[in-house]
Amino acid sequence: MSNTPTLDRVAGPADLRAMSDPDLSRLAGELRQELIEVVSETGGHLGSSLGVVELTVAIHAVFNTPMDKLIWDVSHQSYPHKILTGRRDRMRSLRQKGGLSGFTKRSESQFDPFGAAHSSTSISAALGFAVGRDMGRPTGDAIAVIGDGAISAGMAYEAMNNAGAEGRRLFVILNDNEMSIAPPVGAMSSYLSRLYANEPLAKIKSLAEGFEAALPAPMRDSAKRARQMVTGALQGSGTLFEELGFDYIGPINGHDMDQLLPVLRAARARATGPVLIHCCTVKGKGYAPAEASADKYHGVSKFNVASGAQAKSKPGAPSYTAVFGQALSDEAARDPDIVAVTAAMPGGTGLDIMAKRFPGRVFDVGIAEQHGVTFAAGMAASGLKPFCAIYSTFLQRGYDQVVHDVALQGLPVRFAIDRAGLVGADGATHAGSFDLAYLSNLPGFTVMAAADEAELMHMVATAASHDAGPIAFRYPRGNGTGVQLPERGEVLQIGRGRVLQEGTDVALLSLGTHLGECQAAAALLEAEGISVTIADARFAKPLDMELITQLARHHQALITVEQGARGGFGAQVLQEMAARGLLDRGLRVRTLTLPDRFIDQGTPDEMYSDAGLTRLDIARVVQEALGRESRVVPLRSV
Amino acid sequence: MSNTPTLDRVAGPADLRAMSDPDLSRLAGELRQELIEVVSETGGHLGSSLGVVELTVAIHAVFNTPMDKLIWDVSHQSYPHKILTGRRDRMRSLRQKGGLSGFTKRSESQFDPFGAAHSSTSISAALGFAVGRDMGRPTGDAIAVIGDGAISAGMAYEAMNNAGAEGRRLFVILNDNEMSIAPPVGAMSSYLSRLYANEPLAKIKSLAEGFEAALPAPMRDSAKRARQMVTGALQGSGTLFEELGFDYIGPINGHDMDQLLPVLRAARARATGPVLIHCCTVKGKGYAPAEASADKYHGVSKFNVASGAQAKSKPGAPSYTAVFGQALSDEAARDPDIVAVTAAMPGGTGLDIMAKRFPGRVFDVGIAEQHGVTFAAGMAASGLKPFCAIYSTFLQRGYDQVVHDVALQGLPVRFAIDRAGLVGADGATHAGSFDLAYLSNLPGFTVMAAADEAELMHMVATAASHDAGPIAFRYPRGNGTGVQLPERGEVLQIGRGRVLQEGTDVALLSLGTHLGECQAAAALLEAEGISVTIADARFAKPLDMELITQLARHHQALITVEQGARGGFGAQVLQEMAARGLLDRGLRVRTLTLPDRFIDQGTPDEMYSDAGLTRLDIARVVQEALGRESRVVPLRSV
Repeated sequence: MSNTPTLDRVAGPADLRAMSDPDLSRLAGELRQELIEVVSETGGHLGSSLGVVELTVAIHAVFNTPMDKLIWDVSHQSYPHKILTGRRDRMRSLRQKGGLSGFTKRSESQFDPFGAAHSSTSISAALGFAVGRDMGRPTGDAIAVIGDGAISAGMAYEAMNNAGAEGRRLFVILNDNEMSIAPPVGAMSSYLSRLYANEPLAKIKSLAEGFEAALPAPMRDSAKRARQMVTGALQGSGTLFEELGFDYIGPINGHDMDQLLPVLRAARARATGPVLIHCCTVKGKGYAPAEASADKYHGVSKFNVASGAQAKSKPGAPSYTAVFGQALSDEAARDPDIVAVTAAMPGGTGLDIMAKRFPGRVFDVGIAEQHGVTFAAGMAASGLKPFCAIYSTFLQRGYDQVVHDVALQGLPVRFAIDRAGLVGADGATHAGSFDLAYLSNLPGFTVMAAADEAELMHMVATAASHDAGPIAFRYPRGNGTGVQLPERGEVLQIGRGRVLQEGTDVALLSLGTHLGECQAAAALLEAEGISVTIADARFAKPLDMELITQLARHHQALITVEQGARGGFGAQVLQEMAARGLLDRGLRVRTLTLPDRFIDQGTPDEMYSDAGLTRLDIARVVQEALGRESRVVPLRSV
Repeated sequence: MSNTPTLDRVAGPADLRAMSDPDLSRLAGELRQELIEVVSETGGHLGSSLGVVELTVAIHAVFNTPMDKLIWDVSHQSYPHKILTGRRDRMRSLRQKGGLSGFTKRSESQFDPFGAAHSSTSISAALGFAVGRDMGRPTGDAIAVIGDGAISAGMAYEAMNNAGAEGRRLFVILNDNEMSIAPPVGAMSSYLSRLYANEPLAKIKSLAEGFEAALPAPMRDSAKRARQMVTGALQGSGTLFEELGFDYIGPINGHDMDQLLPVLRAARARATGPVLIHCCTVKGKGYAPAEASADKYHGVSKFNVASGAQAKSKPGAPSYTAVFGQALSDEAARDPDIVAVTAAMPGGTGLDIMAKRFPGRVFDVGIAEQHGVTFAAGMAASGLKPFCAIYSTFLQRGYDQVVHDVALQGLPVRFAIDRAGLVGADGATHAGSFDLAYLSNLPGFTVMAAADEAELMHMVATAASHDAGPIAFRYPRGNGTGVQLPERGEVLQIGRGRVLQEGTDVALLSLGTHLGECQAAAALLEAEGISVTIADARFAKPLDMELITQLARHHQALITVEQGARGGFGAQVLQEMAARGLLDRGLRVRTLTLPDRFIDQGTPDEMYSDAGLTRLDIARVVQEALGRESRVVPLRSV
């Protein structure tokens, strides 16, 4: 045995399969240290990755990846997996522009057979691979690793319901750390805790004698006893997972290689159908500051390894999230009918502020956006005033409910849409690109976007007072612009924009927080003698057609700017202008949106630059539209 | 007691509360007969409504509707409810223009507190009302009635998970007829069958002694015995519903008023938290032809009451659904990697045709669109060629999965989108209005719409051969146009449209089956001396910009026509034209889409007329755009 660190002997997972069990344990220890060091420099999802160090080593040691397909649910816990699968030397580029993604990604490695970032998709994807294998595609076993929060989403239940009935060989490893991002909620969570409260490995039913024989001797007896206790006591009754057609193994200690390795080996050797292996782990395991504060270490900034102190962001303007949370809490103090719904994101959405003041009026439904939206619709139908606070990208999960339960019935649900536009380090999977498009064509909806944090306060007030139908307002991740905040938000006139400055050549019609870039672009243009009007539409729906008509009549060019995909605000403007004949006479009109491709992670500025949506890009489009030479604006400077 | 039929004494549910139990049984019998007569004249969802006749009477007799909120899941089973709640005299207008909706609808009656049509929303909505009640809104108990198919969807699970944890008083009545539309699939269904196989009322746990005391004597003993058997045998183990925090009562016979009434009364009297009452019913109960063939009587045409024979539609062109089903089956015969996914709609999507030939290659995942889409993505990642056949309106349920699992990863899942556009009698809830909008802005997607059934065959072939990324094709409900069908579909060139006729004044650029209306509009216009070019775009993405540029250059006006909402095809055309400066010189451009309101049921023709999307509407828009007087086309004739 050499003195070289075990980790240095790992070029890929195949090397793990040649190692002794003690070496694998040693490897796990080294992997944990490396992980802490890396994330202390990059920031990222430390806690969840620390929780699966042993599990990652054990899976790769036992299963034949990449022929066997290992699918990490959400995949923010995939850092140890990345280190072991040929990406160790690039770990310090994590979540940065041009670097490794913070999630699994098919284009990044053959060891990432299915990318993720939204939760609860892994069992569905794994079942797809299992079918592919059974139909002769070159693929081995399919293994989904899913957390206790993620497994409580409806999608995971749908997948288990289908997989249990299909009966194909398939491995689901439940990584139960009693914690999604916030502490868990819901009946499933309590149920898992009850299982957990039993002795380890307390229930094994249908893997039967063969499985038990394959277990190491000390575990064999208790397993057999447990199995008899369950199967003998009541015919046909077992764990919830068994009722759904899975063999259930567990709970086992997910940090004990002496449990993990034999159980995975036995399961791999004997399973004929779907198997659920219930692993209990500790989020942040092995790093005291992370174990002590699992929520604060879910996603971390850079930190000092010795002290655990995280780098603080520079003091500056409050975040949009905090402004929203405070404004809603204040509105709730004035109006007892205001309630709020979050899907497992009380802190991320700022609803924790209201929850502290009015704990009975904030509902965390868990990772369950579908239910959350319709639950809010039901509350609205009863006469309450629900605010449904869901990130733009996650509201996609509740799209049908927004259409069918809210819009079709005209129910006054208020949607607070955080993380609109490009979000930074979380990359393309978390981009809030589509909400303007998928909401603005819903009849009866009112759709707003805040240009700054004071505007956000006005929109909270406007939504609170709007009982005529559904209303949504979007705002980005990160800090506000630093504008003076009012004591209390004003109720805006529905469907009315505002003009910030009047010019004569071109009108920039901005929706949302790109207003600042529009103002900067106008400064560039004015320096070149182009006179610019700047308007903030405030509303993507209903459109301020009086304003738009004036802008069209009095300028040679009209440019819309939004932090969203095509089909959204600009599209609505063009279609309505076309219908009214406002394009008939040759207005130079352009709609600046996100481009028709997904934008990889970077800082938001880097991402908007990649997207062609900087002040320079805006200025260039104006010059092109006006038929001016674009040399007047230098290519890449401000 | 009078000889007047009991039903004639019912002006509303309050009258039921004054009736004796035998009168309520008599009422149920009369209600069933009236229901059969009505639906024989109107067509509609007979089987599911027949299955809940006794349940409907019992709920309204026991609960205090409309103060208590009764929420029918899907609500196609709400016909008896409509008859009892003041809508008896309008039942013969069911599902017709200006008539009663085939579903519950808030605007139709105060007895419909929450509309539905898509499945699995009722528990979420009911929980919303329960919160409203607990926060002082004027609302009583909340009762959700949900089928065994609908309760297997993830959304219902999310709602139970949340409701079980919330612990509020809430009633969920599981209407278990072992049948959604097609026979049920999935592990949940097998689980319910196992419960059903036990003796009636076999499991009662936490309503405890109080509940049992409230039961009629003959049931009391068995209930107590059952409860002891369960609770005594194994601590903490119960039904799946009990694990989720519900009290479970049942199974009971949902056609036996002597079980229904006492159980509902006892539950109402004693419940403190969420209660699930498991009722077993027979779809089509009491009408022999419907009982014998539950799937064919799920939704019926008009029929002869004595014989059960349903009115046949005129022999004519094959339906788009059948053409798709046959074409896919033929492609599957040629390519063993083709597989197909349906979400509980094998017949409705035409996949039953392929399933007969290749039973192992068609996957019915149940009402589980989220899982279905990602399962297909997993199969695609393994190298298979999955066709995911889901109605436009139901694909909304899988929107996030389309974005996050399919589009972001560029996986070649083929989406066969039936029921695109306005669908007729099912009305606004089933309209396929938004798919063009929510798919055409996804990077890397290819989006097609078939102009006729031969085009549909080409698109099936094109999708089968397209491995470069996700691809979707949409087509409407109903019969094709009767065009000659090719032996086999041709693979279309991606992103290329076709010109059907060349003119000089105006270009009609159609996408999808409104091409026929465009041709009819052109005939009207040509009679007035306007020369019309007609093109079929075929692709909403990628756009045929070569074709569009030519159309823009050589006509005074360009009109896009689609059977979809704003933000879709026309929006993409306008935004790309704007970007390229094609609007700078004053083209008269109009985008004809569905209007910004929901369209109530009628025939599809009536609905498109309501929507302002007839040949006359198209012709009028052309005349307006060209600046002609519109009197040349008469107002409402052809």
